[in-house]
Amino acid sequence: MKKYVVITGASSGIGYEAAKRFAQRGKNIIAVARTKEKLEKLKTEIAGAGNASAEIIIKMYDLTEKENIYALYNSVKELDIETWINNAGFGDYCSVENQNLAKLEDMLKLNVEAVALFSALYVRDFANKENTQLINVSSVGGYTIVPSAVSYCATKFFAAAFTEGLSRELSAAGAKMQAKVFAPAATKTNFGNIANDITNYDYNKAFGTYHSCAQAVDFLMQLYESDKPLGIVNRETFEFSLSDYRFPYVQKPQTLQKV
Amino acid sequence: MKKYVVITGASSGIGYEAAKRFAQRGKNIIAVARTKEKLEKLKTEIAGAGNASAEIIIKMYDLTEKENIYALYNSVKELDIETWINNAGFGDYCSVENQNLAKLEDMLKLNVEAVALFSALYVRDFANKENTQLINVSSVGGYTIVPSAVSYCATKFFAAAFTEGLSRELSAAGAKMQAKVFAPAATKTNFGNIANDITNYDYNKAFGTYHSCAQAVDFLMQLYESDKPLGIVNRETFEFSLSDYRFPYVQKPQTLQKV
Repeated sequence: MKKYVVITGASSGIGYEAAKRFAQRGKNIIAVARTKEKLEKLKTEIAGAGNASAEIIIKMYDLTEKENIYALYNSVKELDIETWINNAGFGDYCSVENQNLAKLEDMLKLNVEAVALFSALYVRDFANKENTQLINVSSVGGYTIVPSAVSYCATKFFAAAFTEGLSRELSAAGAKMQAKVFAPAATKTNFGNIANDITNYDYNKAFGTYHSCAQAVDFLMQLYESDKPLGIVNRETFEFSLSDYRFPYVQKPQTLQKV
Repeated sequence: MKKYVVITGASSGIGYEAAKRFAQRGKNIIAVARTKEKLEKLKTEIAGAGNASAEIIIKMYDLTEKENIYALYNSVKELDIETWINNAGFGDYCSVENQNLAKLEDMLKLNVEAVALFSALYVRDFANKENTQLINVSSVGGYTIVPSAVSYCATKFFAAAFTEGLSRELSAAGAKMQAKVFAPAATKTNFGNIANDITNYDYNKAFGTYHSCAQAVDFLMQLYESDKPLGIVNRETFEFSLSDYRFPYVQKPQTLQKV
């Protein structure tokens, strides 16, 4: 049975680059985003690069709508999904006081709700299939709070804690699926424009150092190939490393314990 | 002008007890929950306890509906809200694989969306009024992941990181409002029943130690009176302490920096 990699947020940035990279490895891709044109461009680019063996299925869904999360999942769940990458998401560089609340709502839906629901759905159906893995894209901002990006960081703390906990839960249950957190730092994508509500965000001016999309996807592929639960960029040195869990975890629950 | 304390989730547990305690101190209360009967009971109990000076306004809203978050806020924002306590929330003791997704959705809306939106709304209008404070109820599970409560803990990591970040942001801006995280451990409330989908949850069987509602509200009042940003119960000793921030924070942003 043909195996697939699902990548949300595949129309640009890390998602777009990751789709190309998995296709180069002969993986079949289910690329999810809102915009048909960008997904068609991805499909054409992959075909043009001589990855004829890879099947590319494009799926147009706006994942800020809960109904679309279930609709997308139901449209692909009969396929053999070997890898699911929750990459869709965006940031907001703004004080809490000045946040656009509609943008905040959409950020919560995409960075929190979609990650939690897709993870739960995928785990439910695929946890005991060989070689499956779930990769949730968090951020270095999911382990360290960054000024002017408090709400964004809180969503990434959610993703990091949820995925570390899920990874431990799957491991303790002897499940075949691995769950992993990907935590990049500044990466030159459309992220800066969206987070600042501008169209000409200059990574050279904003950051002393940042990674290219290709570099970030190099790191993602290292995480994909490893048995570690976390791949994280060091905020100071910008070095990437595969890591054990970072958040404290109750080995023998004494609080919040189930009957 | 009369000053008010808003308490969400005031129909039972810590919220109910906190409403009584603030009323004892002569504070006017805006008590929010879904159920009219329980709020009327609270109002009667407060009046019967001889707190005639305290005005009790009851507000029936289901905060899992986003529209209700805005409707509630708009119905009270003209009042002088000195304190806002985001206490509404619930847990789910379940593996991610076996979660009821409707329950997960509601938990995300209440524990994440309502906390973020009410905080943003309250800060926007009241950050520069004297003696204002925002208290968001997280959990020890917002700093340490607990097995079988992964999704719940992730929502509480969100609340803790969001509120610590907001607290630092307000402080850095010289705002008059303080934002604080309350992080109790096991407390004997209706929490255990809801988290386990049962009606006879036995705290004595489930936990070696737990706090009563009255104890938890003692801790909450200590936090309310202090200048510390965090009040947290030690998971091992069950002692409460007022604490500085726990999560790492970028003092001089080098990543995720705004232009």
